[in-house]
Amino acid sequence: MLVGKRTWMFEKRPVIISSGVIGGPFEKQGALANDFDRFYDDLWCGEKSYEQAQKKLLEDACQEALNKANLKQEDIQFIFAGDLLNQITSTSFACRSLSIPYFGLFGACATSMEALALAAYVVNSQGAQHVLTGSCSHNAAIEKTFRYPTEYGSQKPPTAQWTVTAAGVGLVASQGEGAVVTSATIGKVIDEGLKDPFNMGAAMAPAAVDTIKAHLTDRNLSTDHYDLILTGDLAKIGRPIALELFQQNKISIQEDIFQDAGLLIYKPDQPIQAGASGAGCSAAVTYGHILKRIQSGELKRVLIVATGALLSPLTFQQKESIPCIAHAVSIEHQGGM
Amino acid sequence: MLVGKRTWMFEKRPVIISSGVIGGPFEKQGALANDFDRFYDDLWCGEKSYEQAQKKLLEDACQEALNKANLKQEDIQFIFAGDLLNQITSTSFACRSLSIPYFGLFGACATSMEALALAAYVVNSQGAQHVLTGSCSHNAAIEKTFRYPTEYGSQKPPTAQWTVTAAGVGLVASQGEGAVVTSATIGKVIDEGLKDPFNMGAAMAPAAVDTIKAHLTDRNLSTDHYDLILTGDLAKIGRPIALELFQQNKISIQEDIFQDAGLLIYKPDQPIQAGASGAGCSAAVTYGHILKRIQSGELKRVLIVATGALLSPLTFQQKESIPCIAHAVSIEHQGGM
Repeated sequence: MLVGKRTWMFEKRPVIISSGVIGGPFEKQGALANDFDRFYDDLWCGEKSYEQAQKKLLEDACQEALNKANLKQEDIQFIFAGDLLNQITSTSFACRSLSIPYFGLFGACATSMEALALAAYVVNSQGAQHVLTGSCSHNAAIEKTFRYPTEYGSQKPPTAQWTVTAAGVGLVASQGEGAVVTSATIGKVIDEGLKDPFNMGAAMAPAAVDTIKAHLTDRNLSTDHYDLILTGDLAKIGRPIALELFQQNKISIQEDIFQDAGLLIYKPDQPIQAGASGAGCSAAVTYGHILKRIQSGELKRVLIVATGALLSPLTFQQKESIPCIAHAVSIEHQGGM
Repeated sequence: MLVGKRTWMFEKRPVIISSGVIGGPFEKQGALANDFDRFYDDLWCGEKSYEQAQKKLLEDACQEALNKANLKQEDIQFIFAGDLLNQITSTSFACRSLSIPYFGLFGACATSMEALALAAYVVNSQGAQHVLTGSCSHNAAIEKTFRYPTEYGSQKPPTAQWTVTAAGVGLVASQGEGAVVTSATIGKVIDEGLKDPFNMGAAMAPAAVDTIKAHLTDRNLSTDHYDLILTGDLAKIGRPIALELFQQNKISIQEDIFQDAGLLIYKPDQPIQAGASGAGCSAAVTYGHILKRIQSGELKRVLIVATGALLSPLTFQQKESIPCIAHAVSIEHQGGM
């Protein structure tokens, strides 16, 4: 099941039998609005704080996935999930109401694929029949945690990214209809010494390339095995850096199959600087947009490479550089082998 | 491999082939000093901040475990670890220097057993040969995160607990000499509505009892299957509450086999109020003291039940109650079945 150094093959073919994707008002105006299940029209989501709103997004996404699969909370053995808040409280509070045995994860914006890798691993090795997995972010809650309170209206440089308000959840099962999770490659912490928290894309690009390289080596594949290699979230600055690093590493890749969740989710006229980010970005794009395209057969084989910047406001203040990580999970059309 | 609702049995008997336990100056004065590998004589551990000191403790504990097993970083497939800091930065920075594929976890003080459950699961199902797992805490870094800066010298009520300065790490392998990890029961988030962050023991006791009850039900055991059921960290207030909840749940348990890591680690004359806590407490006690007693054959079968309070300072300020969780892992003498 372990191939190479850090890749798991899921030979029993766990299936994402349903998903739930909930967004905020800004995402409703975005490029992938049709791939969400539902939106809230204001950032409060009916709650009293932005943190509780983030919790609500995750709760709703889980409920949506359960409803579509016609399953109840008690049919689910485990949930693997996390978010970007201090002590991932939105996720823990969501799991309080869900009452499902819970593994709390933190991988910053790479949490989505850290969670899916573990969920698929556990289902593949018969440690569960049904597992929920996902992550969430909320623009106001996360900007407040990592940067200035948004109310201050402070300016951001063009390299900054916009935190997505969304939760994306998948329900992974040992059998059923849906896209198949076929392998996962786990990231190492990579830190090239960059220190600018307003340029996460550049900091995270080397981690994405390191994990993709490991994935290809471990599985003995070239990039053209995939119809799409989707990072999340390198955005405008990080993506060309990654392409350059592929060249340096002598990895051949067609530019058009190398896309980024942070560049897909919004429309070009939305004021998002370099692109989108947030633990909910790759989750929402994967469990909404990408799953639809896999299920329709338009995409046969996709590698999702979620990237995370593992800093905190405190490590920035202490003048540390930004350690980054990327986890890759391959998802395939059920018919394909 | 899944038995009952939320318990994994590890039939291939993954082994903790070595461990590393590093403490601070206060732990050096404690009751279990002989069970640590090494201490720092001051809280800075040679670093420039308490957060970096916490990172150092984890790095050292990992290195210690590697050295004892005569293994190198590149022999380890994965590390499962976490801590209590915002964005678990100490763990992520430790994993930067370790350069081992990394799963970041957050389960507050229950992280130690969340991590061991996953590590043992992955080794048991042949997803890795060697996995590092552990957690850490640092009195000054964590008190600063959750409460007042310690420099303020603010008073604490007698129900408060003292955050341990320590890291505890286990090296789990598919074969070798050492204590065997035999099963794990994953916790649900339990919240009985308590709101006092200076009385974590009371808040966490119901989660501990819920997980122990699930463990006994799933495995069809009574408490006398174990020589020791060790919670971490209910301390003076939480332990008697747990004993009362056992009675209410008609679970018979001998009081002397029900012990608590937060009551073992320090001496009675150390000024720790209700007892110890912190993600490093159950980790240090388990990978130091308990492993020694299992290896000597004094203890044959132990259930470690790490408890975590999943709050943040912000959720406290927002007047939320404290959601808690407990994860249980059984560890046995290699000879015993």
